[in-house]
Amino acid sequence: MRTIDFALDPRLQADTHHVASLPLCEVLLMNDARFPWLILVPRRAGLTEILDLPSEAQRDLWQEINRAAEVLRATVACDKLNIGALGNIVRQLHIHVVARREGDDAWPAPVWGYGRAEPYADDSLSSQVALLRQQFGVTQE
Amino acid sequence: MRTIDFALDPRLQADTHHVASLPLCEVLLMNDARFPWLILVPRRAGLTEILDLPSEAQRDLWQEINRAAEVLRATVACDKLNIGALGNIVRQLHIHVVARREGDDAWPAPVWGYGRAEPYADDSLSSQVALLRQQFGVTQE
Repeated sequence: MRTIDFALDPRLQADTHHVASLPLCEVLLMNDARFPWLILVPRRAGLTEILDLPSEAQRDLWQEINRAAEVLRATVACDKLNIGALGNIVRQLHIHVVARREGDDAWPAPVWGYGRAEPYADDSLSSQVALLRQQFGVTQE
Repeated sequence: MRTIDFALDPRLQADTHHVASLPLCEVLLMNDARFPWLILVPRRAGLTEILDLPSEAQRDLWQEINRAAEVLRATVACDKLNIGALGNIVRQLHIHVVARREGDDAWPAPVWGYGRAEPYADDSLSSQVALLRQQFGVTQE
């Protein structure tokens, strides 16, 4: 069920590729080949904090965060998951789920604000998205 | 109920002051006067990921994260909450709940790994902890 007036923040839209629509959230892949990095955006307009969600929707959110984390662990090398809700720049509520590898470009620093994104090559982006969709059980988009 | 073999990571212990014991987590105040910054540590030994917690304990964790966020919002100025589970350096599962203010020392960057902590003055630490304990409903420690 989509809330009518929800619209993805244009900066999130520009920086990501759509992976899947879960019951509450859109799942996006950050277009940064340095880090396997998903972003979950609840389809509710005007949200900035997790606390602003009704408690039932919060439960859905945590389940979907878990699901995204499991999908990442099943899809890519991952020494540590980094999960974060920041929103200091883009205020639309969004949750980062990032698979970190020891020795990755930013390790052990956080990925947020670290250097410049390195976009995926087209074929690499397609195959990564296909793999993720398969893990999320998305049959077609 | 404390799990017998849980022990707080010595680095977390060194960097924080104890605020409260919730049903699942110890709540700690980061000794860094630049940012109002709580850390929640589930009293379970050997955990590194939220996913490793049984689902019932995960529900408790999310509730306690919410509670910590509400306490911060009620206690200090807060333009944006930053919530994060990283653990790239200290692997013991711990969740950061930070009250950010526009224009604070690191704004809009994340606080993790940003510059050097500035310890509270003793009286300021005591009054901050007292205020937080009152909000958590802790009557004595």
